[in-house]
Amino acid sequence: MAARRNRRIVLVKRPQGEVTPDCLKLVEEAAPEPQEGEALVRNLYLSLDPTQQGWMKYDSYMPAIPIGDVIRSGGVGEVIESRSPLYSKGQLVGGLVGWQEYSIADGGGRRMQAVAPGIAPEDAVSLFGITGLTAYFGLLDVGKPKAGETVVVSGAAGATGSVVGQIAKIVGCRVVGIAGGPEKCRWLTDELGFDAAVDYKHEDVGKALAAACPKGIDVYFDNVGGEILDAVLLQINRGARLSLCGAISTYTSEVPPPGPRHLLQLIVKHGHMEGFLVLDYAARFPEAVGQMTKWAAEGKLKNRVDVVDGIENTPAAYRRLFTGGNTGKLLVRVG
Amino acid sequence: MAARRNRRIVLVKRPQGEVTPDCLKLVEEAAPEPQEGEALVRNLYLSLDPTQQGWMKYDSYMPAIPIGDVIRSGGVGEVIESRSPLYSKGQLVGGLVGWQEYSIADGGGRRMQAVAPGIAPEDAVSLFGITGLTAYFGLLDVGKPKAGETVVVSGAAGATGSVVGQIAKIVGCRVVGIAGGPEKCRWLTDELGFDAAVDYKHEDVGKALAAACPKGIDVYFDNVGGEILDAVLLQINRGARLSLCGAISTYTSEVPPPGPRHLLQLIVKHGHMEGFLVLDYAARFPEAVGQMTKWAAEGKLKNRVDVVDGIENTPAAYRRLFTGGNTGKLLVRVG
Repeated sequence: MAARRNRRIVLVKRPQGEVTPDCLKLVEEAAPEPQEGEALVRNLYLSLDPTQQGWMKYDSYMPAIPIGDVIRSGGVGEVIESRSPLYSKGQLVGGLVGWQEYSIADGGGRRMQAVAPGIAPEDAVSLFGITGLTAYFGLLDVGKPKAGETVVVSGAAGATGSVVGQIAKIVGCRVVGIAGGPEKCRWLTDELGFDAAVDYKHEDVGKALAAACPKGIDVYFDNVGGEILDAVLLQINRGARLSLCGAISTYTSEVPPPGPRHLLQLIVKHGHMEGFLVLDYAARFPEAVGQMTKWAAEGKLKNRVDVVDGIENTPAAYRRLFTGGNTGKLLVRVG
Repeated sequence: MAARRNRRIVLVKRPQGEVTPDCLKLVEEAAPEPQEGEALVRNLYLSLDPTQQGWMKYDSYMPAIPIGDVIRSGGVGEVIESRSPLYSKGQLVGGLVGWQEYSIADGGGRRMQAVAPGIAPEDAVSLFGITGLTAYFGLLDVGKPKAGETVVVSGAAGATGSVVGQIAKIVGCRVVGIAGGPEKCRWLTDELGFDAAVDYKHEDVGKALAAACPKGIDVYFDNVGGEILDAVLLQINRGARLSLCGAISTYTSEVPPPGPRHLLQLIVKHGHMEGFLVLDYAARFPEAVGQMTKWAAEGKLKNRVDVVDGIENTPAAYRRLFTGGNTGKLLVRVG
């Protein structure tokens, strides 16, 4: 039998600001052989997430990806060979597979989790994966929305934001999404049930928010940081909660740009601003997946994936995350 | 009997940035006459607080001071004439007296509270007044320090900061104060028992904090905002709490300057940043005064007031708050 070849994208240079094409390289190697206790996984979908640019750049909540290593990423695949009692051939598994065609799963550091029966692989790596879980915990546990309150989410047409808004509707909130362009905004209101959408590319965000939030803002789920965070701060209600998930508007700067001018609003309004990582909630992932599966079955949660074919197209696709080029969860489908 | 004259400082122009002398005017009028249900108070000490510059400029958690009105301020005085069952002649009372020699107390909007027996007037308007209460609730309720944690406070030689650090020591924390100049820093460590002090005027705050906080920062009580907040953010521990009390470094700018570059640290470290106003805790003031009185009697809380004589010197004294010119609570002693 011909040896399997494994195409993978490795880090060859730490990005300064943007993740430019010269930072990444597609290489081809022999696929790994599973050892005793391991399984070989053929990857189906690779995840493209803003947090990966940080992993490429510096040590943070995870160590920086070493130069020469495959790009760390979530993903989902099928077990094609198993020498472990944890995995069986044909099974769908998800976890940190890396941007590559084949991965090794074991019970330890390269652990992958079985995907629950009935869940499609593209949903396992989006709505029921890290991005959906991020929405669930960042909204419910950090933002603590109550029925009747007004929730604003930025990056609303993205993988996490689109789920945040739908869960806020389930809770009974007025939901306003901020997204770029009329098409995304229409999707939020017409397909996902948001009460209003603000097009930050064509509207004055402050004025549009004031119109969309006549009772002020009680919860803000922030994916973007920057000027939009500032515009929101000026309109928060007393006791508002700001859940900081990301600040994608700042990620392509070589040094972090200055922050919001209006933090004093937190004092005047007794506001809470809290950041989080979804891994902070790992022990409660099953609870969340169970709840979201139920909501999806009831038709209350819709999932949208934005699929690019071919691992060789991953670097170009990745840049779309930072230019507003995706709607829903951005995935690469492997060969 | 000659009619009493009341010298008072009124707002004649809204400050742009700094509170310049032309914004304020000393005027002399007939002292008010107490009506039925009111008392006349001769003021002893007037409070000078950073928050007053906001009251002079714009509507916020309180309406802006109208042009022509006396400057709203805390203070303490003696009842010299009473037509109210709530007040008796000779009694010490504290409240919003305004920058003037005589004030009217009633049971309603101009209510003043009796000072508990045994408390000196200068302590009533500082340690046991709004500034001490601000320290108490902002540290204990917002910062939630636990024994063994590291607490950093900025504006540490000021009225609020100096009390924050002492209460954090009582809780059992390692306490690091940030202040301007070696004299203030020595006062913090030698007189108030802080574990270390950082002189922001002569040290690299980031490096000095790293040396003073070998286990990182768990709680930060912020009186200053700006670059010091940024330096702290880079050194917070997981689950850190940042209690926002004020941002005096930004108050003299005409427009709010940009905020901290490192808010992403809140995400990576699951940090909480929460603002507060001491009035949020009004229902619990008696509890706090009782506790602080006990600590003071046990020698665990020291008070320092920085007294300027003569109401005519109030405008010049007020500017010292923004140049680091005071140590402890800045008060004006009236005639």
